[in-house]
Amino acid sequence: MSARAIAKAVASGKLRAEAVTEIWLDRIATVEPALRAFIHHAPDQVRALAVSAGQGPLAGVPFGIKDVIDTADMPTGYGSAAYPGWQPCRDAPVVHLVRRAGAVMMGKTVSTEFATAAPGLTVNPFDAARTPGGSSSGTAAALGAGLILMGLGTQTSGSTIRPAAYCGVAAMKPSPRLIETFGVKPLSATLDVVGPMARDVRDLALLVSVCMRRAELAPETLAPDGLLPLEPMGLFLPVHDPAADFMPLERAASILGSVTFRAVPGWWEGLGSAQDDVFAWEASASLGVDRDLHWEQLRPETHAFLRRHDGITFARWQEGIAARDRALADLDAVFGDADFVITPSAPGEAPLGHAKTGPATYNIRWTLLGCPCVTVPAGFGPAGLPVGIQLVARPGQDALLLRQAAAVEDRLRAAGVEARPGV
Amino acid sequence: MSARAIAKAVASGKLRAEAVTEIWLDRIATVEPALRAFIHHAPDQVRALAVSAGQGPLAGVPFGIKDVIDTADMPTGYGSAAYPGWQPCRDAPVVHLVRRAGAVMMGKTVSTEFATAAPGLTVNPFDAARTPGGSSSGTAAALGAGLILMGLGTQTSGSTIRPAAYCGVAAMKPSPRLIETFGVKPLSATLDVVGPMARDVRDLALLVSVCMRRAELAPETLAPDGLLPLEPMGLFLPVHDPAADFMPLERAASILGSVTFRAVPGWWEGLGSAQDDVFAWEASASLGVDRDLHWEQLRPETHAFLRRHDGITFARWQEGIAARDRALADLDAVFGDADFVITPSAPGEAPLGHAKTGPATYNIRWTLLGCPCVTVPAGFGPAGLPVGIQLVARPGQDALLLRQAAAVEDRLRAAGVEARPGV
Repeated sequence: MSARAIAKAVASGKLRAEAVTEIWLDRIATVEPALRAFIHHAPDQVRALAVSAGQGPLAGVPFGIKDVIDTADMPTGYGSAAYPGWQPCRDAPVVHLVRRAGAVMMGKTVSTEFATAAPGLTVNPFDAARTPGGSSSGTAAALGAGLILMGLGTQTSGSTIRPAAYCGVAAMKPSPRLIETFGVKPLSATLDVVGPMARDVRDLALLVSVCMRRAELAPETLAPDGLLPLEPMGLFLPVHDPAADFMPLERAASILGSVTFRAVPGWWEGLGSAQDDVFAWEASASLGVDRDLHWEQLRPETHAFLRRHDGITFARWQEGIAARDRALADLDAVFGDADFVITPSAPGEAPLGHAKTGPATYNIRWTLLGCPCVTVPAGFGPAGLPVGIQLVARPGQDALLLRQAAAVEDRLRAAGVEARPGV
Repeated sequence: MSARAIAKAVASGKLRAEAVTEIWLDRIATVEPALRAFIHHAPDQVRALAVSAGQGPLAGVPFGIKDVIDTADMPTGYGSAAYPGWQPCRDAPVVHLVRRAGAVMMGKTVSTEFATAAPGLTVNPFDAARTPGGSSSGTAAALGAGLILMGLGTQTSGSTIRPAAYCGVAAMKPSPRLIETFGVKPLSATLDVVGPMARDVRDLALLVSVCMRRAELAPETLAPDGLLPLEPMGLFLPVHDPAADFMPLERAASILGSVTFRAVPGWWEGLGSAQDDVFAWEASASLGVDRDLHWEQLRPETHAFLRRHDGITFARWQEGIAARDRALADLDAVFGDADFVITPSAPGEAPLGHAKTGPATYNIRWTLLGCPCVTVPAGFGPAGLPVGIQLVARPGQDALLLRQAAAVEDRLRAAGVEARPGV
């Protein structure tokens, strides 16, 4: 059952939020001990929240919030041992919006430490020997396993799109400024975005419409059921990446048709280090308190992340921003005549092991450019793990992008490319 | 004695931070009961901080932090009764930077409620019957009265530049992204900036260099003592404002010379409502928790501020951003061949009364455009209250602007235009 169907049923009184909640609490009780998607989950608290939940567009929807996002009624540890039991005084604005819309908070979901490198305990819902991706590990895994129907992640490099693809769910990295990032543990003011996540594109559109306060993005108006018209797209394979598996993208492209290959502009490769420099300079201020006061409590991966920034300078930041601005002025070199390109969401299926959360190769440059991205579940790869394809639009074209993503999903489903439920 | 002289003496061991602190504690004990610049000031805590203060470029400098900025060791009430005794878990990154540089926190300074309209109890240090301006009322007044030598404000419309001008001190509204705003009670992600404030431009440059982590902005390199070369400036009188008193600007212009009048482009006037729309749409999300959960504890002015936003739409926000982007593409229409313009910091001296903090007429559009602004103390007006002139540069030209501001201040001082100390 989709989140939008549940919300409609609850808002119209056909279903009670408490009844919905009990079903998902049961599912969590069964699956969570092995999945470890939640860092905070208290069934009695969830029941109380279900009783008081509002009757808005997300009425009764089981929801998960990444642990780096402030909540007034649940501890917020930012994925770190440095903030044990910390309880913020208010919800982040985006949490307040989804709560007011009626979502029922099932708990806080696992994040890597400060949404950087050190992973939590969550496993991939399709194969416990593999990473769920990160840093939004818990939200992605809980969605993939059906423990929640919507949730929030964040992205500074590839922290929303990549785990969503690894866990077989849909997610959006919006254009900057369209969803408030206040109340998120900050890394980079230029790059940080809140990433809505759901189990399919229409549910995703509903969640985005609430987070952006734009009713016109809701599925009824944006993407009515049935085959939406598909706009032309470029196919963009920016990185010479011997490790990458382009099968999912090629399969999708052959189903979609009307896809033209796009050449990679000369400036593309260099944008990767530009993103890294912007991230590093801003994070070295944002995480200054943690580096100076919490060093002993931080994970080795976080130590390495912070040490890597020691030599960063304002001049490098300035050059990174200038490289971004030059690229934005030449964005036609990527999009050509089309409004959209498709690219891999990640280099392939979720890697084996839990020490790392996978590479953000296909995400970092879009994040720097501020291009909105949606990952659409696109079936399974050779190892039987979920794969996604990433649709990208020009900055600010978030509404168009969601509509196109729904059209893409329609065609993939119609061609039998399924996103089966998780464990 | 300047902050930079004190910092140098303390860092070199010629002066002890504890001794400096006692002098300023004495001054606060005498003046604060009538001025009411602090919302939190605990002498014993200040003494303990002086003992542990670092030996960096702000060593021993008596410092004030606006109450809307998070501090880990002092309550942070955001200027509101809605957060009684709230204690954040960590310093805002910018607070951490100044603390690490050795500044001694004398306390939290009064802000209007959530840095919007409802004023606190602070009075103007030059005339207790007048407003100190706002929303950074306490930092400006404490600086004007010499209770601190540096401090932080914030600005979303005119909340740093205007109170600084009213209280006879120097302040900067930097370009966005150059000083982290994390840990500031958010109003508008597009507009909010942290505003460094000091008693003269060289002290201001030293503080900005710490907040931006750019040693090359420090006074020794940026603006050595003596008459710096003055670059050409445009004189920009954008608003037909019968209430405004342009005497301070005209006096300054006649002293400075090499100032050419600039015509006002046609789009200038409309940028005011664009700023208001961007502010309103973003604040209606940022303050959503407060509107929905804290309404009864909020001040009538805040109620009015929030109600004014009821009809705001995403489309209006989009139009506001588009108007800003068109203006930025035509910025030569304002600056012409010059890198700088001078305009009033405020329409005149601080108004009588305490119900309002004065109009932000000459600030809101620069804030929307992201142009850096510095207000330079420029003597006194007809009523004997301080006045400032505002220097403005193109976005990102913060270093050039500080240097020019120091050159302007040099010439005003050389011509006998004094910024005398406060009460």
